[in-house]
Amino acid sequence: MSVMRPSLLRRGVQALTPHLYRSSGAGAPIGLSRTGLIRQLSAAAPPVPPSHPVWKLGRLNHVAIATPNLEQSISLYRDVMGAEVSQPEDLPDHGVTVVFVALDNTKIELLYPLGEKSPIASFLSKNTNGGIHHVCIEVNDIESAVSDLKAKRIRCLSEQTRIGAHGKPVMFLHPKDCSGVLVELEQA
Amino acid sequence: MSVMRPSLLRRGVQALTPHLYRSSGAGAPIGLSRTGLIRQLSAAAPPVPPSHPVWKLGRLNHVAIATPNLEQSISLYRDVMGAEVSQPEDLPDHGVTVVFVALDNTKIELLYPLGEKSPIASFLSKNTNGGIHHVCIEVNDIESAVSDLKAKRIRCLSEQTRIGAHGKPVMFLHPKDCSGVLVELEQA
Repeated sequence: MSVMRPSLLRRGVQALTPHLYRSSGAGAPIGLSRTGLIRQLSAAAPPVPPSHPVWKLGRLNHVAIATPNLEQSISLYRDVMGAEVSQPEDLPDHGVTVVFVALDNTKIELLYPLGEKSPIASFLSKNTNGGIHHVCIEVNDIESAVSDLKAKRIRCLSEQTRIGAHGKPVMFLHPKDCSGVLVELEQA
Repeated sequence: MSVMRPSLLRRGVQALTPHLYRSSGAGAPIGLSRTGLIRQLSAAAPPVPPSHPVWKLGRLNHVAIATPNLEQSISLYRDVMGAEVSQPEDLPDHGVTVVFVALDNTKIELLYPLGEKSPIASFLSKNTNGGIHHVCIEVNDIESAVSDLKAKRIRCLSEQTRIGAHGKPVMFLHPKDCSGVLVELEQA
């Protein structure tokens, strides 16, 4: 365990256990000397609050696979692997046709380019057989997540959140800041 | 409903209801004329059995991300995104060091090359920032799945299943037969 200055330690404790402190917020908690408190806390969990207490990651919402042949990809998951597969749905605002493949705990989204400015066209020109385009992870508070990530110098691909394909605010993070992976965060 | 020749229809019915047929296997079932049978079946569900009744897909077990900088990837998910991240574990038999990132419904596995013959070395030489290496989907019966997929001309990357990183039998499927995605099937 790293050594911590008592003043920092006290501040951490006060944040975690405000009900023990007098309204002035200073000094030792009621009925416990400072030395006794430090001794108790040395054996307890680190008192520093988590670095982003406001937002957190949740479920993996989907894995998005871009495909140059939608019928073939549908047939793979539906006819060959026996999964439940939705009807194709055109999303002109997002430049893709999407098909959902249901797994027990999440889903695969098959993406096929729609229109001339499809955001997956460039990916498919480099990955001619198709491939995983991005992963989408839910967060409990997308706005807090975005402002926190920006402060931590994770590049976001748009200035502000946008409404994604599921009708909820989303933000894409730069692959170069995420181990080469395009990560979409979505409001849960 | 598509039109079906009576002979084909009969064969399908015989396969589904063998107890109704005489041991010769030919002709109409006992106590029912062929015409009556066809009339009955025209209103019933299609008599063709499902293409793979024995095995099915289950949970997405993990998304595997290969990274050229394990510390940086750990820091991203643990310190920046606040996820629960395991200690690195060396798997010399699999040529990787692995770290698990817990999400609410599944996990991300960070893979870092271990040894000179790491199976992810070639991937990282092409994807210098890292990237998604494969997805792993559970199946309820891996041996049935593999023999069924082989019969359906989906190429498997080994002749037989092998024991994977979680101590369970696995099989990798060829990306060219899976929309450009390396798919690992794992016994649930």
